Amino acid sequence: MPDDPDEASLIQTVLRHRPTASRHRLPAASFARPGDDAALVGLGLVVTVDAMVEGVHWDDRCSAEDVGWKLAAVNASDIGAMGCRPTWALLTLSVPAPADGAWVEAFAHGLGLGLGHFGAQLVGGDTTRSPGPRLLTLTMAGEGARPVGRDGGRPGDELWVTGTLGEAAAGFFEGQPAGLAWLRRPVPPVELGAALGELGLVHAMMDLSDGLLRDLPRLCAASGTGATVDAAALPAGPALAGLSAETRLARQVAFGDDYQLLIAAAPATRPALLERAAALGVALHCVGHLDAAPGLRLQGGPWPRPDFDHFPQAAAGRGT
Amino acid sequence: MPDDPDEASLIQTVLRHRPTASRHRLPAASFARPGDDAALVGLGLVVTVDAMVEGVHWDDRCSAEDVGWKLAAVNASDIGAMGCRPTWALLTLSVPAPADGAWVEAFAHGLGLGLGHFGAQLVGGDTTRSPGPRLLTLTMAGEGARPVGRDGGRPGDELWVTGTLGEAAAGFFEGQPAGLAWLRRPVPPVELGAALGELGLVHAMMDLSDGLLRDLPRLCAASGTGATVDAAALPAGPALAGLSAETRLARQVAFGDDYQLLIAAAPATRPALLERAAALGVALHCVGHLDAAPGLRLQGGPWPRPDFDHFPQAAAGRGT
Repeated sequence: MPDDPDEASLIQTVLRHRPTASRHRLPAASFARPGDDAALVGLGLVVTVDAMVEGVHWDDRCSAEDVGWKLAAVNASDIGAMGCRPTWALLTLSVPAPADGAWVEAFAHGLGLGLGHFGAQLVGGDTTRSPGPRLLTLTMAGEGARPVGRDGGRPGDELWVTGTLGEAAAGFFEGQPAGLAWLRRPVPPVELGAALGELGLVHAMMDLSDGLLRDLPRLCAASGTGATVDAAALPAGPALAGLSAETRLARQVAFGDDYQLLIAAAPATRPALLERAAALGVALHCVGHLDAAPGLRLQGGPWPRPDFDHFPQAAAGRGT
Repeated sequence: MPDDPDEASLIQTVLRHRPTASRHRLPAASFARPGDDAALVGLGLVVTVDAMVEGVHWDDRCSAEDVGWKLAAVNASDIGAMGCRPTWALLTLSVPAPADGAWVEAFAHGLGLGLGHFGAQLVGGDTTRSPGPRLLTLTMAGEGARPVGRDGGRPGDELWVTGTLGEAAAGFFEGQPAGLAWLRRPVPPVELGAALGELGLVHAMMDLSDGLLRDLPRLCAASGTGATVDAAALPAGPALAGLSAETRLARQVAFGDDYQLLIAAAPATRPALLERAAALGVALHCVGHLDAAPGLRLQGGPWPRPDFDHFPQAAAGRGT
């Protein structure tokens, strides 16, 4: 999940030097979809890794226990967005020496809660000293009969979003309590993502970690489509109550940390989608559709200014 | 791979909070052998992760390209020590912003060389800003028909070591050129490890990353045995020429970064072991045997003082 203006170029540099041939055969799809939330490395087996750095991905509004939960949740979100269920995880823990035992204890407790909630087992890891900030990474694997990428969207597909958007943003900027709770302990709809993959109900899916205005263009680029989104259709929770229309929309689309699903599916699957979401207690809103014409058409508004994507970077403690 | 006095307690803390039940079934062996070089997460599928921190795991004697190679090599070493072949890898790259493009380019080149050499394909990753030192992690998976752990050693087994010991130590302390080359770009005998696993020729195997005197007790503990080692039998390369007997032995057993295999195998398999190693161009030396009686019996000498394991920690730039 890019969280830095130059992350894309770093990734390109690394990929350019990647070995071109390997003794080992992996599914052809593994490399066809480098932008997916997780990589397909075997039949129905996906893997992802996320790093969280103190002072970059969290500040003192997140307790050690929150950080542990969130590390599990953001990885599980990637797995669910691929239409899969989490299976195992590997941790790396880099902390200053001597280690702050109470911090590690609380972190481990939160991580265990999160992994347990999302159904992943911790199978190993590595710990090192860090002369700098605490830095954590979690590798997570998932399984699913039909992993879903970002590249299957088709013109005419309806665009769906789970839950509500902008909760974490309202927590971060306004200190709104329900928003802070989501910023600290997001609960992505992993089970719904896995079910939708399993049932073959969706064409493309990804999780909203960087905000709709940064994430939707990625789905469109992978699918070779454009999109039309209606501001009035974007779901807003009580965390956004009392905000001006302009601020509310900015919170909903330009911050991120939503960890909701963005889904592209044929209109004919609408009843099945809604039924499955309702059965799992997840709200589902149709927010627009994919178009054959490239580009993003934003209806309603006022939408955030075109420089929206530089705004969150300036804030300390920006979450990913 | 523990590289810090309190790493074991950090790991224990994390494991204590690990979810006790999971929806997902993993091989029973996954959790029976938490000390192995990699975790068994499926039929013939193992995974490992290693973190490298600037100033902790490398200093300015390692170029960015060296760091990339070494990150691939140390993970491949873990996979080979499990009797498996590397398949895929996931990278996390945490670097100060704005990124030093030349450093990343050289690192990526070295990583690509290393992954290509050991046969692993890079399938994904994550990049983040770091307000502290550069920090890299690599998750690597491997496959093998018969993964080998540390717990299968039996009294009477012969103990074998590949290659030579102490090269990296001589590079680190004496600045010896061949030693520095191994410190920078180790080439673990991954193919031999994979072949020995495949052929079912060994009872227990691990890689020597922390030095024989720290690693052998781990194999013994997992196998429920003791061991006898003969100092005169430990293989020494030209990097150790000219050192006193005492210094030479310290370099061979108390520093680490050897990335050679430590093998326990029945005496009857000796001809087959030697034949396989010779076929792959890897030197193999019998350095002792496992005993029923607990404890390490060190013959010859002079062996490093009992506080040897604190010694390398004091040195800046200690590699793992």
